[in-house]
Amino acid sequence: MSAAVETLKPEADVRAAMRAIGRSARAAARELANAPAEQKNRALHAAARLMRERAAAILSANALDLAEAEAKDLSPALVDRLTLSPARIEAIARGLEEVADLPDPVGRVLATFTRPNGLVIERVATPLGVVGVIYESRPNVTADAGALCLKSGNAVVLRGGSDSFHSSAAIHACLADGLKEAGLPEAAISRAPFASREAVGEMLKGLDGTLDVIVPRGGKSLVDRVQREARVPVFAHLEGVVHVYVDRAADPEKAVRLAVNAKMRRTGICGAAETLLVHRAAPPSLLASLIGALIEAGCAVRGDRAAREADPRVAPASEEDWRTEYLDAIIAVRVVDSLEAAIEHVETYGSHHTDCIVTEDKAAAERFLKEVDSAIVLHNASTQFADGGEFGFGAEIGIATGRMHARGPVGVEQLCTFKYRVHGDGQVRA
Amino acid sequence: MSAAVETLKPEADVRAAMRAIGRSARAAARELANAPAEQKNRALHAAARLMRERAAAILSANALDLAEAEAKDLSPALVDRLTLSPARIEAIARGLEEVADLPDPVGRVLATFTRPNGLVIERVATPLGVVGVIYESRPNVTADAGALCLKSGNAVVLRGGSDSFHSSAAIHACLADGLKEAGLPEAAISRAPFASREAVGEMLKGLDGTLDVIVPRGGKSLVDRVQREARVPVFAHLEGVVHVYVDRAADPEKAVRLAVNAKMRRTGICGAAETLLVHRAAPPSLLASLIGALIEAGCAVRGDRAAREADPRVAPASEEDWRTEYLDAIIAVRVVDSLEAAIEHVETYGSHHTDCIVTEDKAAAERFLKEVDSAIVLHNASTQFADGGEFGFGAEIGIATGRMHARGPVGVEQLCTFKYRVHGDGQVRA
Repeated sequence: MSAAVETLKPEADVRAAMRAIGRSARAAARELANAPAEQKNRALHAAARLMRERAAAILSANALDLAEAEAKDLSPALVDRLTLSPARIEAIARGLEEVADLPDPVGRVLATFTRPNGLVIERVATPLGVVGVIYESRPNVTADAGALCLKSGNAVVLRGGSDSFHSSAAIHACLADGLKEAGLPEAAISRAPFASREAVGEMLKGLDGTLDVIVPRGGKSLVDRVQREARVPVFAHLEGVVHVYVDRAADPEKAVRLAVNAKMRRTGICGAAETLLVHRAAPPSLLASLIGALIEAGCAVRGDRAAREADPRVAPASEEDWRTEYLDAIIAVRVVDSLEAAIEHVETYGSHHTDCIVTEDKAAAERFLKEVDSAIVLHNASTQFADGGEFGFGAEIGIATGRMHARGPVGVEQLCTFKYRVHGDGQVRA
Repeated sequence: MSAAVETLKPEADVRAAMRAIGRSARAAARELANAPAEQKNRALHAAARLMRERAAAILSANALDLAEAEAKDLSPALVDRLTLSPARIEAIARGLEEVADLPDPVGRVLATFTRPNGLVIERVATPLGVVGVIYESRPNVTADAGALCLKSGNAVVLRGGSDSFHSSAAIHACLADGLKEAGLPEAAISRAPFASREAVGEMLKGLDGTLDVIVPRGGKSLVDRVQREARVPVFAHLEGVVHVYVDRAADPEKAVRLAVNAKMRRTGICGAAETLLVHRAAPPSLLASLIGALIEAGCAVRGDRAAREADPRVAPASEEDWRTEYLDAIIAVRVVDSLEAAIEHVETYGSHHTDCIVTEDKAAAERFLKEVDSAIVLHNASTQFADGGEFGFGAEIGIATGRMHARGPVGVEQLCTFKYRVHGDGQVRA
């Protein structure tokens, strides 16, 4: 079935089919929650093997998507995200194996306490249930999200974008067949065969009570819609207005290196720096060095009066710039009078995603790390480390800036909830 | 100002005032998040002292509520919940001191990992932000919820019911003055001075983005309304359809003791047993002993055919009985063919709150604890232990059956979220 045919289905049919997918996923989740680690890992290794065996077929499916992309005149950036190669397929397969190699997060004893009456109470990690993932053009999200949910004992309902329809279907088939080989229900990794908006709408309503959480992966307009309309919890970040604050006690060489890496290593990721704050009492040449290095690296700089005085190539920054996530080779530079003013700026204009202080003053670093209320706060390290892989989580299903349940990179541990197991010997309450 | 006057305020004024309360609480939350443990504890101890000093005034306020309750012809159960006494005031004051004595949950390092590049990443507990508590007639919730939120570094907006209006105001004044004595913002424990439904409506909408979570404390209709209408996360349980499963390998004496305590110690609490499941192959006299002991303790028993055959005093149970939270001296009894059938019954009819297996068979116990997907699962212990105090949490703000963030009794630890603190020495990402 091609995407074109599917999108012509009547809305009511899409709704009913999506709800049926939700119910199957819910049933699979119960089975998966009690599956041993070894069986889940077997499914992941089988899926990786199938990805390699079917590489040619996956590339053919991808070619169909690329041909449609050309016809639709998609942007080069989107086409790049969509394009698979033998190397990318191998990377996806290896990713599945890496997730299999992670310790099993289910059943971990998170805390134990013995009560005076002899009761032993354990807080034990259990799967969340059914995760809904709504994503756009990256076909690899199919494998990453599927693997992380499987590893954490959750069923997942994947709804990819129309641009990657055929590629995602081919990758999903490997996961489903991997589950089958391992004797696990295929519905544990379900895929919405509809690229329509109705499919998304049904997921946002929770698929008739079957979804426990939704993870949107894609641009700001997708995340914004999901955050506004979802009737189930959402793990997401709307944007990353990420700050690097160079303190008065910063090591100048470190500051320049970190600022350039945080901004320019990759400008399109959520951990890329968007605003540079510099303490007014930092060494006088440091502001000019920072701006010069950024411009030399190809970055456009917008700044306040002090920044413009330090380098005439700096364009004026408006109030709007402090709130902007450029996702591009542009940075806003502001000089602040104190550590407190830097924290105040971050709290006022930031997005609670990732923020960094560069300083050799431990007390200043401690204060920044404590008072900046972001999911990730760094001292003397690039903000581009805001990534589940870099954190050692194997992979991430997304980065969350919400305060409930998950925050920062969301890996298999945060895809779990917990329950209390109480061990007694006949105790009754007085 | 009396409640009567306040409820006559135009809706628009209530809305504006509630939003202003939210904004003040949000500002207070930021200050509180960084307050040292000692300062928060000082506020709690001062509040406890003030409760004792003002006991006579609190009792006078309570007398006003009781007079209104009499005029409104409230049920004896409601009047009992509402009534304060010198002993109850002392218990509330001691509760504040017990919360002060808990370890500070903020700043706990929940995990640390060192990456190959030398980065040290810590997951550190931080406050959630602003908690909204909507409750009915129990004035002590004012103190319990206020204390737990303060201890966990959260601001709280309390909206009590009209029945306990004066009592709650008097208790709240002690908390606010305790904050003031300790140099903390009074808005950290805010109280909605409106008993109107509009005040609740505004809280359910999140007070203009200032509430992070809502905790409803009260009857099923309140919880149901909050769960359906809240636009922010909710920690709650709608009901506790709590099971005691007596396995074939149960110790008979233990089984009888646990079943009677789980059902009859207090019948009106959420951890009270509502359904008794008994394995068909349990010792033949055990079913009759269980039923006899429950009836002797004053419990009405409804049961399936096997239960009725075991004791003629058992009334027939309908399908509806398996889904009913009686909160009364009534129990439904069913005989099941196997451990699997017991688990299936709990998963089909239960409310994922608290469930118990009575058995001497360790493997059966392990399977029940693993496969029953409830917030609290117990082996050979009364379900009436489902309580934050009994778990050693000092107190609880409520019991949650949701899967996100908090589950089971919610104490100060679950009133925290976390952030990642990353310590580097100039690391950049390749």
